[in-house]
Amino acid sequence: MSTPGTRPRGGEPAREALLTAATTLFLRHGYAATGTDLVAATAAVSKQTLYNQFGDKESLFRAVAGAVTARAQGFAATLPEAFAAAAAPADVEEVLRGIARTYLRTVARPEVLAVRRLVVGEAARFPDVARGYHDAAVVGTLAALGAGLTDLATRGLLPVTDPAQAAEDLAYALLGPVLDRGLFRVEEPLPTPEALDARADRVVRAFLAARHG
Amino acid sequence: MSTPGTRPRGGEPAREALLTAATTLFLRHGYAATGTDLVAATAAVSKQTLYNQFGDKESLFRAVAGAVTARAQGFAATLPEAFAAAAAPADVEEVLRGIARTYLRTVARPEVLAVRRLVVGEAARFPDVARGYHDAAVVGTLAALGAGLTDLATRGLLPVTDPAQAAEDLAYALLGPVLDRGLFRVEEPLPTPEALDARADRVVRAFLAARHG
Repeated sequence: MSTPGTRPRGGEPAREALLTAATTLFLRHGYAATGTDLVAATAAVSKQTLYNQFGDKESLFRAVAGAVTARAQGFAATLPEAFAAAAAPADVEEVLRGIARTYLRTVARPEVLAVRRLVVGEAARFPDVARGYHDAAVVGTLAALGAGLTDLATRGLLPVTDPAQAAEDLAYALLGPVLDRGLFRVEEPLPTPEALDARADRVVRAFLAARHG
Repeated sequence: MSTPGTRPRGGEPAREALLTAATTLFLRHGYAATGTDLVAATAAVSKQTLYNQFGDKESLFRAVAGAVTARAQGFAATLPEAFAAAAAPADVEEVLRGIARTYLRTVARPEVLAVRRLVVGEAARFPDVARGYHDAAVVGTLAALGAGLTDLATRGLLPVTDPAQAAEDLAYALLGPVLDRGLFRVEEPLPTPEALDARADRVVRAFLAARHG
């Protein structure tokens, strides 16, 4: 609807631009040292639009974290159906590969890593935001993954004695090194989608090999 | 030498107090918003002592990160001897348990997690510090762990086809969930030393079970 460059953005594009600008500026200058004037100018929206969309700087920070937790919750919500697609033991590897690939691609994104850095760095100021992020993006996803593995075990498709532990093992083998590297090495590109898929496939193979002995 | 409370601290105690105060204040207020006056006052040392010890605020930040990477390098340096202590296949589990327990206790400490939060949060400002931290505390430790597993494999004590991958698997299964939780949930206590040891033992058992089929 709006024509970029000819008038200030409003609505959803303005919201997205403000979230992106806020993430970048909070990371570069710190939350405390970043004024909403600069966020609005960087997003090419008026300060009034910022306040209409988000209320104040703290709400803007919370919205930045909330956008990523919403994405994580979106992924977790797809898991029951994804696990249900396995109808026979022979389907399990392909189903887990698909889940692992999607999980890794959902997390290993520059904008997700940026928000993770921001939430971790500001955890002393906003402990409730950091806790909420961990609840939604880590605990919630692991719970959904554990429920899916329980589903496979219940239907006799995969031997899983401790689904919560198995979900944790799978998730950290998959994401741990990629997240760590991405959090610290801000100037290096993330793995390509193809490299992420290859990682997902390898981790799933090892996960299944450990379960089948 | 100095008597606490009667005169400003100098030397090593002053250095430690400054590093602790800087970590806390940088996390609470952000690097940019934290003045060296406040750091010196919080550490109960003179500003002159701060400048004598660290030069300037940026050098102080680098020293905060450096203290943790030095600790990680200290742990990695103990690994060749620790792995060498396994003389027979029956020794491997106990040796790995000892290594895993020490590794976990080295990392799962409030002051290490605080510095990790700080380095991650300021990675956009100081990408070289974050990269150096990852090199020393993650890449370097994984390399030493991989070399130790290669040593075990070479001496016929443990079947390891890909030592680098095995080191990564072991490290992330051990540390991943504890670090994640500690980074985000700043107000919750870390696991007790006993709980950390139990985790280390469990992860080593699973690691060995996966290798022996």
